[in-house]
Amino acid sequence: MNVLIVHAHPEPQSFTAALRDQARSTLEAQGHQVQVSDLYAMDWNPVASAADFARRDNPEYLVYALEQRVGVKNGGIAADIQGELDKLLWADLLILNFPVYWFSVPAMLKGWIDRVLVSGVCYGGKRFYDQGGLVGKKALLSLTLGGREHMFGQGAIHGPLEDMLRPLLRGTLAYVGCQVLEPFVAWHVPYISQDAREGFLAQYRQRLERIDEEQPLVFPRLEQFDDALYPLPA
Amino acid sequence: MNVLIVHAHPEPQSFTAALRDQARSTLEAQGHQVQVSDLYAMDWNPVASAADFARRDNPEYLVYALEQRVGVKNGGIAADIQGELDKLLWADLLILNFPVYWFSVPAMLKGWIDRVLVSGVCYGGKRFYDQGGLVGKKALLSLTLGGREHMFGQGAIHGPLEDMLRPLLRGTLAYVGCQVLEPFVAWHVPYISQDAREGFLAQYRQRLERIDEEQPLVFPRLEQFDDALYPLPA
Repeated sequence: MNVLIVHAHPEPQSFTAALRDQARSTLEAQGHQVQVSDLYAMDWNPVASAADFARRDNPEYLVYALEQRVGVKNGGIAADIQGELDKLLWADLLILNFPVYWFSVPAMLKGWIDRVLVSGVCYGGKRFYDQGGLVGKKALLSLTLGGREHMFGQGAIHGPLEDMLRPLLRGTLAYVGCQVLEPFVAWHVPYISQDAREGFLAQYRQRLERIDEEQPLVFPRLEQFDDALYPLPA
Repeated sequence: MNVLIVHAHPEPQSFTAALRDQARSTLEAQGHQVQVSDLYAMDWNPVASAADFARRDNPEYLVYALEQRVGVKNGGIAADIQGELDKLLWADLLILNFPVYWFSVPAMLKGWIDRVLVSGVCYGGKRFYDQGGLVGKKALLSLTLGGREHMFGQGAIHGPLEDMLRPLLRGTLAYVGCQVLEPFVAWHVPYISQDAREGFLAQYRQRLERIDEEQPLVFPRLEQFDDALYPLPA
């Protein structure tokens, strides 16, 4: 497998970085090829803007997704976006590795999603969910949280974590056609012992060693909807 | 009321910008004070990093939320963050006005959330949800979407919009203690007629004129949980 790890944490020595390194070494030991995009180290620009296009289809009025479609065809999309898109298209497995900020990704990583998941390649028209542009790839969220595990789940104070992660799991990764695996979660990270952290690393290693055997989460399929995307009778 | 509109769209002539202007003129006509943070126009920096702190509590290892708590006390937090925080604390109503990117806010606005909703002021320790630091304020998402209304809801292809917006509605705005109002949504914006757009603007104006009368959405209250945040019997 080719694996792309997109990592976003402002502290180079963070435990989130240790998860990144664990993933790289475990997957390489299994014979997989691994590339890492370390967004803070790369000084990645997270801001989608008109500057992302060398030539504009419509120089008067920016429709970002439309310019993405045109730009990726005519080679006019910004070099940093094209570089990440090439890595993404090369990958069989995409890992987004991050600390949870506001029950979501840090802006740095949101800006990778906004700019790199290009319309016309990753999705577009009726190409989404099981018809998405990235069908055939797998995707995994690997994340660290300040909260404790019992604060998530049915009836818990924050509800199920998967519900908080819905725009990422369903609205982003499943939307572009990826088979989305259950997130890997390291809980309460700023407050736990070194032993507990090593426990999470071992757990992550064991999981990655058998990642091929995992069943993906279930999301909508376009055949369940009509041409106007109204649901068909079950 | 004091109102802060945080606006993030890369196209200055966008319909999202028209919603921003509609909100400003309607609310000012009602006698409210309005400030606008136009993040693209301000060239806002969305990246949470060590550079946000003039002095560091721990210069060796960055725990962002911890440095926020210290920085906001000792005046060492970056001037752009302090400026936005001052506006936020001044406001009785916060409006986040944006185009939906990946069922969430653009990275530009996510970075406003990451950097401005400072630990120690907006939340911290047991100060969240109905005990959050921004108790007494109201909050409204005002958003534009490419999708059509029938693509959202129970059984619809993307499920309920409120579920996709959960990390914003519950995980961010309710978390810091705001009374969160039902989002204002303009559907299918890139594809609709001028008449339809004017319809949305009129609908938004009518809603804002009676915003005082609205009942907020319902979220957890800390009294429903014990000291360790396990749920208490109902």
